[in-house]
Amino acid sequence: MTRHIDLLIHNIGQLCTLRGGPQRGDQLGALGIIEHGAVAIDDGKIFDVGTSEQLHLRYDAARLIDAQGCAVVPGLVDPHTHLVWAGDRAAEFEMRLAGATYMEIMNAGGGINNTVQQVRAASLEQLIAETRPRLDRMLRLGTTTVEIKTGYGLDTPTELKQLEAIYRLAQSHPMTIVATFMGAHAIPPEFAGRTEAYVDYVVSEMIPAVAAFATQRGMPLPFIDVFCEQGVFDVPQTERILRAGIAHGMRAKLHADEFAALGGTRLAVELGAVSVDHLVESTSEDITALGKGDTVAVALPGTPFGLAHSKYTPARAIIAAGGILAIATDCNPGTAWCESIPFIMALSCRMMGLTPAQALAAATINAACALGLADTHGSIEVGKQADLLILDAQDYRHLAYRFGGSSVKSVIKSGVVI
Amino acid sequence: MTRHIDLLIHNIGQLCTLRGGPQRGDQLGALGIIEHGAVAIDDGKIFDVGTSEQLHLRYDAARLIDAQGCAVVPGLVDPHTHLVWAGDRAAEFEMRLAGATYMEIMNAGGGINNTVQQVRAASLEQLIAETRPRLDRMLRLGTTTVEIKTGYGLDTPTELKQLEAIYRLAQSHPMTIVATFMGAHAIPPEFAGRTEAYVDYVVSEMIPAVAAFATQRGMPLPFIDVFCEQGVFDVPQTERILRAGIAHGMRAKLHADEFAALGGTRLAVELGAVSVDHLVESTSEDITALGKGDTVAVALPGTPFGLAHSKYTPARAIIAAGGILAIATDCNPGTAWCESIPFIMALSCRMMGLTPAQALAAATINAACALGLADTHGSIEVGKQADLLILDAQDYRHLAYRFGGSSVKSVIKSGVVI
Repeated sequence: MTRHIDLLIHNIGQLCTLRGGPQRGDQLGALGIIEHGAVAIDDGKIFDVGTSEQLHLRYDAARLIDAQGCAVVPGLVDPHTHLVWAGDRAAEFEMRLAGATYMEIMNAGGGINNTVQQVRAASLEQLIAETRPRLDRMLRLGTTTVEIKTGYGLDTPTELKQLEAIYRLAQSHPMTIVATFMGAHAIPPEFAGRTEAYVDYVVSEMIPAVAAFATQRGMPLPFIDVFCEQGVFDVPQTERILRAGIAHGMRAKLHADEFAALGGTRLAVELGAVSVDHLVESTSEDITALGKGDTVAVALPGTPFGLAHSKYTPARAIIAAGGILAIATDCNPGTAWCESIPFIMALSCRMMGLTPAQALAAATINAACALGLADTHGSIEVGKQADLLILDAQDYRHLAYRFGGSSVKSVIKSGVVI
Repeated sequence: MTRHIDLLIHNIGQLCTLRGGPQRGDQLGALGIIEHGAVAIDDGKIFDVGTSEQLHLRYDAARLIDAQGCAVVPGLVDPHTHLVWAGDRAAEFEMRLAGATYMEIMNAGGGINNTVQQVRAASLEQLIAETRPRLDRMLRLGTTTVEIKTGYGLDTPTELKQLEAIYRLAQSHPMTIVATFMGAHAIPPEFAGRTEAYVDYVVSEMIPAVAAFATQRGMPLPFIDVFCEQGVFDVPQTERILRAGIAHGMRAKLHADEFAALGGTRLAVELGAVSVDHLVESTSEDITALGKGDTVAVALPGTPFGLAHSKYTPARAIIAAGGILAIATDCNPGTAWCESIPFIMALSCRMMGLTPAQALAAATINAACALGLADTHGSIEVGKQADLLILDAQDYRHLAYRFGGSSVKSVIKSGVVI
């Protein structure tokens, strides 16, 4: 007797399952490959995983997809983006090429505050309309789960408008979308020189308003994130904001060590943050802390690439210390308008010394872990969301070997062929 | 009275015409932008260029495309690829990440000779079938004209098989495809240690056979190209091969200064080669020669990127010397499987210090010049092929500002919407 299911994908040359949960330290890169594999999908979930021979005997599928010997991998997870924005900063890109630094541009009123002005001026509908094609392109490039941060509002009404845009997209777009509140992304112009006053505002007004808004909208609470950096928020300010978010039931994330090591990484580990991101300038103490804690280290190599910097996150040291490494695009209009996780994999291999297998694990199961979703996303295992990619090649390494284009032939999201 | 035409593209925010011919030295980056532009297309050619207001008065178009205020640029030209191959070298990519150098891999029987084995074993049909999807992806990413080299045969029958594959693709694929004969791409295993004997074979047998084959097929003669490099062909050998090709009516191209500066660049200029390519290690004498000659300097930044090297072609010095700079992908299965000219533009801005406008000129009119096609391709001017791209952004700089994905919304090739 065969059981009826919605979809059977068979004749998979290399089925990279990424089974077994988040991959710590030297375990990174265990792909759990099944040759001549197949995946049975029912009701948007993975129902069974095995060889083509096994699954053909067990199931009668309403739809059959022949992978033609190509590789299949889990849908990619992008655990760090700033995807909801209005306008662009192409002119600033050209300025930067001509020699202006990130902090110079920011201090001159460009940088994040340029986007803040455009987001404040934009309607909710405009924000959604500008973001949706970015999500569409990301999905076609293989990303099936994405985190999106607020942080271009920097006042309560605009932060809530951004959060509402994220929620509306989460409800209407096929991708799994996870929200992060990042009111502490920069100091807005009206608080210039009064960082403590802005921290008070975030803690006493924004965080309660965000928590109430999520509850009222029936949505899960967002993560809370802070840009802990020289000239932005110092460690005590960061701690105050994160603790206030935690007190409201939010889980913490953190931007740390992008341009200077202030101690944010150790704070993230102490607070049990779900992830700490950037980590370009992390010290050996920071790396040791990552090896001991459960906070996922998220490297964002698109950012130094976008800025034409030559220094990248010391990913191999983080792996050697026993840390849980993930990668993400950091997609944003200033430093890194990159919508492609495969490109971030290509960059991670070349600039951070990952193997293609490590890059794949860092962009799937470990990236899901950086969003608290390791039980439901990021691998091809029974009961998980049926999110997977059929490549146009027999070897999963094509995802990182080729660059600048796409080796993803088909995207299946929650069992639906996109 | 309005004239009837096939297609009018109107409401173009920034129409980057790139008019006026190849751009030398500091002239590089003159985009000839028309705001509120329009392009009239008839019979696959550009019939008129102006503002939307002007062209609406003059023409009655069978089809109208509203660019919705987005930027339009010429179809991109990729003047250096090795696109006809069989198989892949993903395993070698992983070896290289682990520390093996290009020359070590080549000396160990990997590298080019690995692909040579696969191309020799492949049928003509297989070569065409493997190459076609690469062309399809390139076209969608904005490339409308591409050069393809032989050089994975390294014996007369296989070189002719590769050339035949290029000719068949040229006749059946929408892209404009230009062939280059590169029998002197490497020394094949059967000639190991006998480079002079291989040069004799190329000169006395291959070149006449290739010239006869092109004539018999009624196709234009290919360019002739040589890999002038330490451990491959030295300058006297290179000169002998190129002069033999020139004597048969072929125009010369040259791979020079990729890993070591042997003097190939000065040879290329002396011989009046149409282009000299790579130029990572070029000396100041080489750069001075490029500034004086008419040989186009083709930078291939995807190759150092693919190899994770930190040294790139000194493009700014070539511009300062008065050279004609172009850029290309070098798409090949070993060092740089990159199908995207926009990614090469993004890389050129960040790694070689080009402005976005310079990168666009280097990838259009100057790249056409590197193929001897500056009179028919590479710009939006009356009488040229109607090859153009509608971006999904109002600002042409998005082509280089964003990276890893695509900002090309529509591709028009010879007046046909792809």
